[in-house]
Amino acid sequence: MIIATTPAQLIEALKPLHGDIGLVMTMGALHEGHLSLVEAARAESDHVVVSIYVNPLQFGPGEDFDAYPRDLEGDVAKLDGVDVVFAPTDEAMYPRNPLVRIDPGPVATVLEGKTRPTHFAGVLQVVHKVFNLVRPHAAWFGQKDAQQLALIRTMVADLNMPLDIRAVPIKRESSGLAMSSRNTYLSQTEKEQALALSRALEAGKRVALDGGSASQTLAVARESLTHAPGVKMDYLELVDRDTFMPLTESGNGLLVTAAWVGSTRLIDNLEVVIG
Amino acid sequence: MIIATTPAQLIEALKPLHGDIGLVMTMGALHEGHLSLVEAARAESDHVVVSIYVNPLQFGPGEDFDAYPRDLEGDVAKLDGVDVVFAPTDEAMYPRNPLVRIDPGPVATVLEGKTRPTHFAGVLQVVHKVFNLVRPHAAWFGQKDAQQLALIRTMVADLNMPLDIRAVPIKRESSGLAMSSRNTYLSQTEKEQALALSRALEAGKRVALDGGSASQTLAVARESLTHAPGVKMDYLELVDRDTFMPLTESGNGLLVTAAWVGSTRLIDNLEVVIG
Repeated sequence: MIIATTPAQLIEALKPLHGDIGLVMTMGALHEGHLSLVEAARAESDHVVVSIYVNPLQFGPGEDFDAYPRDLEGDVAKLDGVDVVFAPTDEAMYPRNPLVRIDPGPVATVLEGKTRPTHFAGVLQVVHKVFNLVRPHAAWFGQKDAQQLALIRTMVADLNMPLDIRAVPIKRESSGLAMSSRNTYLSQTEKEQALALSRALEAGKRVALDGGSASQTLAVARESLTHAPGVKMDYLELVDRDTFMPLTESGNGLLVTAAWVGSTRLIDNLEVVIG
Repeated sequence: MIIATTPAQLIEALKPLHGDIGLVMTMGALHEGHLSLVEAARAESDHVVVSIYVNPLQFGPGEDFDAYPRDLEGDVAKLDGVDVVFAPTDEAMYPRNPLVRIDPGPVATVLEGKTRPTHFAGVLQVVHKVFNLVRPHAAWFGQKDAQQLALIRTMVADLNMPLDIRAVPIKRESSGLAMSSRNTYLSQTEKEQALALSRALEAGKRVALDGGSASQTLAVARESLTHAPGVKMDYLELVDRDTFMPLTESGNGLLVTAAWVGSTRLIDNLEVVIG
């Protein structure tokens, strides 16, 4: 496995590789969710590149950019069957403050984008750069970051980027907690309190399965999360799976939520079908 | 020569081509300026793709999108040694109003961008899309659209796009008039009046060659254009060649101008060295 820390090193490392390259982009602090992405990429690619980069552009002021867990050595040890790890420095990724940027558009202004107004512009900038550097046949992303996934698909379509975007289901602890690098911030008590997110989504899903309407589904899920101890809801919404606009009638929906557990902000989502 | 009118047809036409693909993007109404780009691309590429597309996104309300000359058959007849012409329909290029867009940043707000506030966002969107569809080793652009060229270079650098951008000098009539598809709008009288643009730039250049300062160079060029009959100056500025910010001291400068001759808006530019 080659570890490249600059675009030039990456391009050099890719030269001898022939065939389809699969890409998995991460911010490190790898858990089973990431490893399931790598596995999916390996199954459909001749070679796999994993990027490990805590992208400053996608963190807002007061967010956890400095605190975000970084352990390149530990991460690399977890990777198997990966040809190249791209772990660039900030200077290599952003030799200057970029002048030309990706404008993520309206989907970036709702839900996560409301609380984190510059987040998705930063995500799309780095995703775009790494797509161009690696030139993969496909890239694998987790369904956990559902809105990010939708925006990346939109970018690829609107800019005719030459690759496929593949989604991999959320990996959960046996408790139901969605795996996240940010779970390392949680105390044992908080980890139990955090189960309220997945429980609220499941409560909503049961309503939908029983033939409940969109508003009934949403109300039950919100009620569940609102009364959970130690949890402060940021949002819990029922949206259309593709457009991320509110789903008020029947259709393929996604219950999406973000909440603070102590000082840690967590997200989760669950597919539901209304009607 | 294959003429592709959809991205799918283009990708199909590119499949059998091996080696380096050179790209020339045009809006058609081809003149010697365009053909010099094609020739430059041929000299350094195994294959050449020419796009011919009047991109609606780069025209503002009240501009000449409808009037812009279109003659695909005539254009194709002028092309020699070109493998593929990409002449897409609007529906093929923009199956929907794009949600994710290129934000061209600060350089797009001055000069051309001041008069045409949405112009460069539209240019970069279509350039970006065609780069992704053709995946050329290099693309050739005319120095005539100097600000466009600077923005495309900035986009390629800031987004790590995997190609080289090459500039080709302005082609001029023997009179000095910069070649432009929009020259077809000009009456014979207007064509003579339009010489005021290149004359003003040349007047400024003589001042610079004689050791004049930035402000002297600019003043003489402006004075020349301001008093030219039948011409209404939009702007005439002296800018840094790379940043397009005003050049007030010594350095590699560019005299850039836009002016209306009758109802036709023309642009021109000329390199000058101050100090």
